[in-house]
Amino acid sequence: MEDIAGMTVKNSLSRSVAINHATVRERANMITFLHLCAERGINVVSVWGNEIDKIGEGAALAALESHGITVSGYNRIGPFTPEYLDQAQFELERAARFGADHVFLFTGGLTEKDGDLGAARKHAEDEIARLLEMARRVGIKLAIEPLHPMLVGDRTVLASLSHANDLCEALGPGIGVVVDVYHVWWDERLEAEILRAGRAGRLLGFHVNDWLLPTRHLLTDRGMMGDGIIDLVSIDRMMRRSGFEGPVEVEIFSADWWARDPGEVLDIALSRCQQIFGSN
Amino acid sequence: MEDIAGMTVKNSLSRSVAINHATVRERANMITFLHLCAERGINVVSVWGNEIDKIGEGAALAALESHGITVSGYNRIGPFTPEYLDQAQFELERAARFGADHVFLFTGGLTEKDGDLGAARKHAEDEIARLLEMARRVGIKLAIEPLHPMLVGDRTVLASLSHANDLCEALGPGIGVVVDVYHVWWDERLEAEILRAGRAGRLLGFHVNDWLLPTRHLLTDRGMMGDGIIDLVSIDRMMRRSGFEGPVEVEIFSADWWARDPGEVLDIALSRCQQIFGSN
Repeated sequence: MEDIAGMTVKNSLSRSVAINHATVRERANMITFLHLCAERGINVVSVWGNEIDKIGEGAALAALESHGITVSGYNRIGPFTPEYLDQAQFELERAARFGADHVFLFTGGLTEKDGDLGAARKHAEDEIARLLEMARRVGIKLAIEPLHPMLVGDRTVLASLSHANDLCEALGPGIGVVVDVYHVWWDERLEAEILRAGRAGRLLGFHVNDWLLPTRHLLTDRGMMGDGIIDLVSIDRMMRRSGFEGPVEVEIFSADWWARDPGEVLDIALSRCQQIFGSN
Repeated sequence: MEDIAGMTVKNSLSRSVAINHATVRERANMITFLHLCAERGINVVSVWGNEIDKIGEGAALAALESHGITVSGYNRIGPFTPEYLDQAQFELERAARFGADHVFLFTGGLTEKDGDLGAARKHAEDEIARLLEMARRVGIKLAIEPLHPMLVGDRTVLASLSHANDLCEALGPGIGVVVDVYHVWWDERLEAEILRAGRAGRLLGFHVNDWLLPTRHLLTDRGMMGDGIIDLVSIDRMMRRSGFEGPVEVEIFSADWWARDPGEVLDIALSRCQQIFGSN
């Protein structure tokens, strides 16, 4: 991709591309991020509450409006500590002020020694049921993004699309799933569960990145699309066959990509999206 | 556990403990390993073909016999490259000469860029069907040990107990599963799949270790039982309720534990097994 470094690649795909701010957050605050997106014709982003805090809500809303950029996902409610849940109402209302399509739930992992995973899962499910009541009153959707099983210690107790679908089914309207290829690509149930979510009308988002070989860190070594071994084209096809019509959202947690020039990262990401998702 | 360092702890549990040579392989060759096991009253081990090669088959068999130690698992057939499959008949026959209960299958991971995971899984399943015909003729059982989903790139394409059970069910007698807590502890299907394997009489082994927080390496940072977050007592209970009566087998891939004195590692492992599995 070196040939396009430094160039500005317009977002002229058959499918729209969204960018998650986390992809460039280390070197671009939200104002810079939105400016870089606007330059490249990207008009959908996902945002983070802590990044909004850094620049102030007024400035963040004004920048979105002036660039004509809308918000897909709002990150996030969680981890589900007693303290954080007091913040949940505030986060839901702020997500609504930002016009977000959905708010991510982040359960937190099984951090205690000798923890009972079954009990932790039950607790998370109960909290999500409670949050869903709150979200319905605010009028915003909740999103479960199942994370990779290797993150059950560090980040989540919801580690499969099957579990997320089961939970959504039990809870009814107002909650759906986001499919991030990094977390679910290995699962032999993947196609069936994407179809199941699609039939229920609960596919809220599609996050793309890649699995690198070797993977040197459990949290911060995700790859740029095309640099790893995930069959992105096949998963994209599953999403489309399931009726998903939203954007392909680039979300890459990577110490390597965070260290690079944010504009260059976005150029490369757009170019890869064009190659991989643009024409199929 | 410092209080027992350097002491010899006799293997006097209500359940027997087996040790996998991989746990101490960096500082103890097979002769030393068997001697250390015998000193501690351990009379079941799992062995590795490449370690047998280092000391010679005659010496390995003589050491097993003189210590009265029997072999549970023989590692291994795979990865499933065309070259390695030529070795399969040799490995099966050698495992039989060692009186092993079962031979591990090791598919290898999805190492190629843009690989088709579905096709790789189909290939592995076909190879296993072929190997099962060979194993039946030799009169030895095959074992599928599903590995953690984070190892689908590096090590395997069989990453869940559900997949392993499905495959065993399709193939019929002569093949079973080994449950390693490290690889399956996160799975919401765990209890159901252990029970399913138990009902079919195909639980061949139970490997123990632990999941550390943080986990610093995908391959070589497994923990000693009790140092991590896996609910070992619950999983042990599932195994026993499913009719498994074999030993608890310690298998720890860890750069930290490999660096320590092998006798001390075994003492600590036995002590932990006593605490965690001895009385429940």
